[in-house]
Amino acid sequence: MKLFNKQTATLITAAGLGLAAVSSAWAAESLQDVMKARGLSQQDLMAAAKTYVPTGKRDDFIAFSSGGQSGQVIVYGIPSMRILKYIAVFTPEPWQGYGFDEESKAVLKQGQIDGKDITWGDTHHPAISETNGKYDGQFLFINDKANPRLAVIDLRDFETKQIVVNPIFKSEHGGAFVSPNTEYIIEAAQYASPLANKKFVPLERFNEEYRGGVTYWKFDRKEGRIDVKNSFSLELPPYSQDLSDFGKGPSDGWSFTNSFCTERYVGGIEKNRPPYEAGCSAKDTDYMHVINWKKAAELVAQGKAKKINGHNVIMMETSIKEGILYLVPEPKSPHGVDVSPDGTHMVVSGKLDTHVSVYSFDKIMAAVKAKKFEGADPYGIPVIAMKDALARQVQLGLGPLHTQYDSKKCVAYTSLYVDSQVAKWDYCEGKVLDKLSIHYNIGHLNTMQGDSMDPKGHYLVALNKLAIDRFNPVGPLHPQNHQLIDISGDKMQLLYDMPLPLGEPHYMVSIDAKLLKPGIRYKHGTNSRTDKPHPGAVRAGEEKTVRKGNKVEVFGTLIRSHITPETIEVNVGDEVTINLTNLERAEDETHGFTVSTYNVHASVEPGKTSSVKFKADKEGVYPYYCTEFCSALHLEMQGYLLVKPKGYKEVKVAAAKAVYTEDDYKKQVKKINDTQAVIDSVVGFITSHNYKDFPDVVSLVEDATDQLGRMKEAKTKHEEAAKAKDWQNATLWAEQVWQYQVKAADIGLRAKTYLEEHGAKKVGK
Amino acid sequence: MKLFNKQTATLITAAGLGLAAVSSAWAAESLQDVMKARGLSQQDLMAAAKTYVPTGKRDDFIAFSSGGQSGQVIVYGIPSMRILKYIAVFTPEPWQGYGFDEESKAVLKQGQIDGKDITWGDTHHPAISETNGKYDGQFLFINDKANPRLAVIDLRDFETKQIVVNPIFKSEHGGAFVSPNTEYIIEAAQYASPLANKKFVPLERFNEEYRGGVTYWKFDRKEGRIDVKNSFSLELPPYSQDLSDFGKGPSDGWSFTNSFCTERYVGGIEKNRPPYEAGCSAKDTDYMHVINWKKAAELVAQGKAKKINGHNVIMMETSIKEGILYLVPEPKSPHGVDVSPDGTHMVVSGKLDTHVSVYSFDKIMAAVKAKKFEGADPYGIPVIAMKDALARQVQLGLGPLHTQYDSKKCVAYTSLYVDSQVAKWDYCEGKVLDKLSIHYNIGHLNTMQGDSMDPKGHYLVALNKLAIDRFNPVGPLHPQNHQLIDISGDKMQLLYDMPLPLGEPHYMVSIDAKLLKPGIRYKHGTNSRTDKPHPGAVRAGEEKTVRKGNKVEVFGTLIRSHITPETIEVNVGDEVTINLTNLERAEDETHGFTVSTYNVHASVEPGKTSSVKFKADKEGVYPYYCTEFCSALHLEMQGYLLVKPKGYKEVKVAAAKAVYTEDDYKKQVKKINDTQAVIDSVVGFITSHNYKDFPDVVSLVEDATDQLGRMKEAKTKHEEAAKAKDWQNATLWAEQVWQYQVKAADIGLRAKTYLEEHGAKKVGK
Repeated sequence: MKLFNKQTATLITAAGLGLAAVSSAWAAESLQDVMKARGLSQQDLMAAAKTYVPTGKRDDFIAFSSGGQSGQVIVYGIPSMRILKYIAVFTPEPWQGYGFDEESKAVLKQGQIDGKDITWGDTHHPAISETNGKYDGQFLFINDKANPRLAVIDLRDFETKQIVVNPIFKSEHGGAFVSPNTEYIIEAAQYASPLANKKFVPLERFNEEYRGGVTYWKFDRKEGRIDVKNSFSLELPPYSQDLSDFGKGPSDGWSFTNSFCTERYVGGIEKNRPPYEAGCSAKDTDYMHVINWKKAAELVAQGKAKKINGHNVIMMETSIKEGILYLVPEPKSPHGVDVSPDGTHMVVSGKLDTHVSVYSFDKIMAAVKAKKFEGADPYGIPVIAMKDALARQVQLGLGPLHTQYDSKKCVAYTSLYVDSQVAKWDYCEGKVLDKLSIHYNIGHLNTMQGDSMDPKGHYLVALNKLAIDRFNPVGPLHPQNHQLIDISGDKMQLLYDMPLPLGEPHYMVSIDAKLLKPGIRYKHGTNSRTDKPHPGAVRAGEEKTVRKGNKVEVFGTLIRSHITPETIEVNVGDEVTINLTNLERAEDETHGFTVSTYNVHASVEPGKTSSVKFKADKEGVYPYYCTEFCSALHLEMQGYLLVKPKGYKEVKVAAAKAVYTEDDYKKQVKKINDTQAVIDSVVGFITSHNYKDFPDVVSLVEDATDQLGRMKEAKTKHEEAAKAKDWQNATLWAEQVWQYQVKAADIGLRAKTYLEEHGAKKVGK
Repeated sequence: MKLFNKQTATLITAAGLGLAAVSSAWAAESLQDVMKARGLSQQDLMAAAKTYVPTGKRDDFIAFSSGGQSGQVIVYGIPSMRILKYIAVFTPEPWQGYGFDEESKAVLKQGQIDGKDITWGDTHHPAISETNGKYDGQFLFINDKANPRLAVIDLRDFETKQIVVNPIFKSEHGGAFVSPNTEYIIEAAQYASPLANKKFVPLERFNEEYRGGVTYWKFDRKEGRIDVKNSFSLELPPYSQDLSDFGKGPSDGWSFTNSFCTERYVGGIEKNRPPYEAGCSAKDTDYMHVINWKKAAELVAQGKAKKINGHNVIMMETSIKEGILYLVPEPKSPHGVDVSPDGTHMVVSGKLDTHVSVYSFDKIMAAVKAKKFEGADPYGIPVIAMKDALARQVQLGLGPLHTQYDSKKCVAYTSLYVDSQVAKWDYCEGKVLDKLSIHYNIGHLNTMQGDSMDPKGHYLVALNKLAIDRFNPVGPLHPQNHQLIDISGDKMQLLYDMPLPLGEPHYMVSIDAKLLKPGIRYKHGTNSRTDKPHPGAVRAGEEKTVRKGNKVEVFGTLIRSHITPETIEVNVGDEVTINLTNLERAEDETHGFTVSTYNVHASVEPGKTSSVKFKADKEGVYPYYCTEFCSALHLEMQGYLLVKPKGYKEVKVAAAKAVYTEDDYKKQVKKINDTQAVIDSVVGFITSHNYKDFPDVVSLVEDATDQLGRMKEAKTKHEEAAKAKDWQNATLWAEQVWQYQVKAADIGLRAKTYLEEHGAKKVGK
């Protein structure tokens, strides 16, 4: 069938799809010319139409992707695949002040290991908080594989609020995954090591003294923080535990963790031993760990856990005795155990196998109940025979890796690493439905909400590990490649190649954009990292500088376009703390702050209070300024930190000579009056239209009114100075009135344009 | 005119534009359905067609955008607006190992100020190296406003090679800009301060002892580095110097720097003085500085510069006496002085004026020659009257800020901050040609190669300062917004909104993608930061660990999928250096490296040698692993750092029990033979087609052959072990053969798919 036929083309032409006529700027060329010039096929045009998001429109889904070794989280929109934000998590991020202001330093400090700063992370698996197994859009969790840690991000402001350090692991990979009501977040070890911190054990004692494990972090939903004291772990054999998933619906209360290298092979190329890759994949199967976490939590409450490094650990002996831990063989070296939306099945893929294995939760429970085991592993953990646990196996292709679910019943998608393909298949019937080639070598994949009880279908993203020749060359280090695939029809369609420019995005989760309700400003004077009032916050007019001994604390404010105070005087060696509250209420009116060469930076969004702290150990003169282009007078949003030498005596200097005259003042007043006429005309336009029907314009009008309100004080000052014939101050304060006018006019013009573009209607007075 | 008419639609349908038939996956729906479902207008469809880059295709232009307060550079493609890379410059970037390996730490150390690390930057203006005034695609330069520094990036590998610290400023904004043959890179001060480092001077002595200036960094093209010793500065008055530009063609040899706050106003809200924003914009004009830099360089060579902080500075007295420095009034608070492609005119916009001012280089030179000055500034610098320098002024709108040039003669584009518009105008005739609204508040703008002598037209990017409601909400901190505009026709067309997720991208430069020729691998054993052979590099088989006293140095290698060595044994307190060479030759086969909780990370691209260094001050067991998903056995690319306690005595432990039997070995051999059959069939497919006509496939075949070549050693080992009836090692080394086979098969399948998708033809044997 042809993509275009006469009928549809005529329809488009005739109806214009009910949209406004194409503006004259667009009239001179035809779509065909553009397609020809750019070498686009009809299929390309269709893909473009399916992914293009016009100016001012929004994406349908929001993706949270791990930032890999960048240590951060990447947020992007689907289907446009435009990156909207990097959330700073484990790595200092100066743009956001993260690691450069005191509030975020406190968060990063929680992530210290053995008393030392860790200034990066290897983020792997993000997870969105759930209520009744469905995404609720409230919190995001992400793990650090290299330095086993977990972070909590609040989706009200997309900021990292907490970092917890795993108390018993030296690496972890199998986190984060949440239980259906986010009671717990799972984090499974990767490479085995002694559980006691800083304990040296030779590799010859690997089987006896190295251990794996899985940690269940308790989440306090009300506080929005992990409750470290009530978290616990299970000791596990020194198999490399890998990904996990929580049961849901019928399997709620259980969790599943797979593993590789159950051979417990210890490599040593330098000793002429075959490498890990040979010894760790020599057997045909590894083990899926099946854990009753609800009962485990009860055992901890009953005091049946052992304290290791101060943390509750249920030892294997206890787990076996209490019947909360079982093993099921799975094809070797799998990555990903994925519970079906209805909670009845778990899909596992052995990367070196060609099959996906569909396990039945019912069959596993039946075996547990009947105590039907094929034996035990070397540590005495009961092993359920594969045949007693499997529903079916399906041959998909080379290198199956990770499975996600569709909104359509029984439909799943599995990534095939070696084949560089996505397979669409039916896990109820056990048949392949479709295959699509990707470029190249897909690791994880994601369908919209595809790991929740409420998958949304629509799109699939292939998280490819190699970009190779897909994009313009940018040197030996290539971007990653996320490919967007349309899964709404029977056959998959490749829509878009998205380069990922920062880190190796290991896994991604996606959510219906409507479920996110982030705020656009903070309550006045908020410490955004604690969500509590900041002790350094002040309101306009309350700014002050307080000295106590050699400690100087500034309580300042930021507003278009000045920093209060504009001078900070200290003595060399003083410890200086500068608290800054952003007085703005307008959306996106962020101010930044830095002091030259003192290595501090803050990003202060509307309502937020941030503080920077440093020792003024270098005498001299250090400009400070706003680092975020905030208004036409942004460059003038400046000040000076003056660091005086020891024993400096103030020098009396004559006051600066007045340079402005009565004429200058009169010119200023005229300029103010002229500008006011412009403002009045803009205000006239706005109020003569139904602007109240447009919430965006209402908030612009509020902002403009706020700016004009600030004018009053400066107006009083210039009029009083003029009365006293102080033309210098009269001229300058009049200029300040004009500054507020310019800002109000700027906002007003934006509002006017909005109304014009959105078809606002004239209203009666 | 209608976008579609019957004729064009028929043409598209009939001719299929000469492209392959639409695959069956795409047949079921019509373009109209998609447009309707997604609410796209015909104009939206056209914009989609103009920006969509299909999978495997490339962008036409590459943009280098400052990353603002992220301290980095953002690289993206035009017209797709997809971000391809972040180049780590002033801020540690773990993904790239930047600040986490020893080689990049050495670069960051060059950027220390007053002996201390600065771990971020406020990047502003990138500049591409030029030859004869045209972009040559070799180097990129970028400045740091907060901590006055300049960085050199080599566009062969997109890596930062050098950072230099400005010796006399405390902040700078007016860099980087290059002279037509990249002899010098300019960096102008922003906020005035005493030029001597760490010199305290009270603000009351602002006019007398605070100074601005402009630095000319000498660039050594052959070395690809700045020649610090042969660089120099001019002392300037304490006006806030702002942006600069170099003359070209007829104006080559001169440079231009504008300024604001020539009022030399010192604010002080806290002392009830009007703020900087009032006092710094009270006068109607500021000054453009006109400097004869070629003559200045000669004066330095003649020893006429003064040494300040060890750096050559031409004092104002000398500049005035030697006739190399002039001032020209310009409308107040401008941002950007932009020399026309033919070098005859300079365009300046006062942000608080409604005009752009077009200055004539000829008129300025005539005034200089005739010594026709309207007077001198307070420091004795001759001032040329505005009327004697201006060609014309053109009224454009509110808040004009920055100007860029078209490939069409006399056509320029200027950003209007307050109006939130781009104005297209003719600077020869002085008339406005078109205006387009943007969202919202544009700062800089860029046309393709629009600040060189060879502008390319096509596209314009508006670098907007506020996103407000343009994108899905992501909390109080919004992305920035770059809007792509088509300027190829008479009227401008808004094509695309691109969110910028990291930093405030202040300015951007763009280059024809064809001019960039980056490499995809390094010569074996390269230190990428010095471009020299790395002393820690070894070849396969030469790996070793060397101990000298308490220093342990590892000379290791990385290849799919093992790290050699796999065990590193040290004593607590040892200083450990691990050098790693990536043995891969294949494009994009990067390996990463980290050691658990020791806060080191390296990104090792093919051919590169990187080293990490740390004190092993924590006894215990620390896994290390490859952090870049590199093959199906990536997770098995691991090893252990064993840190033994003081006085640890080796324990003799029995050798690990053999677990594999003759049967296991036989199974392995069968698996190898089966896999070889698959490989042979893939090889058969490839060699029976004209694969040599596809360079990408040729390089895949080379890579696969390389993997198969590595097989030989493992094959010898398993056969020898089998002869000796050592079934354990025989089985494992046979498994290792299979590992190489899997990698070769992976690459082979990729090559086969490529050939199938690119219409390869059968050839005779």
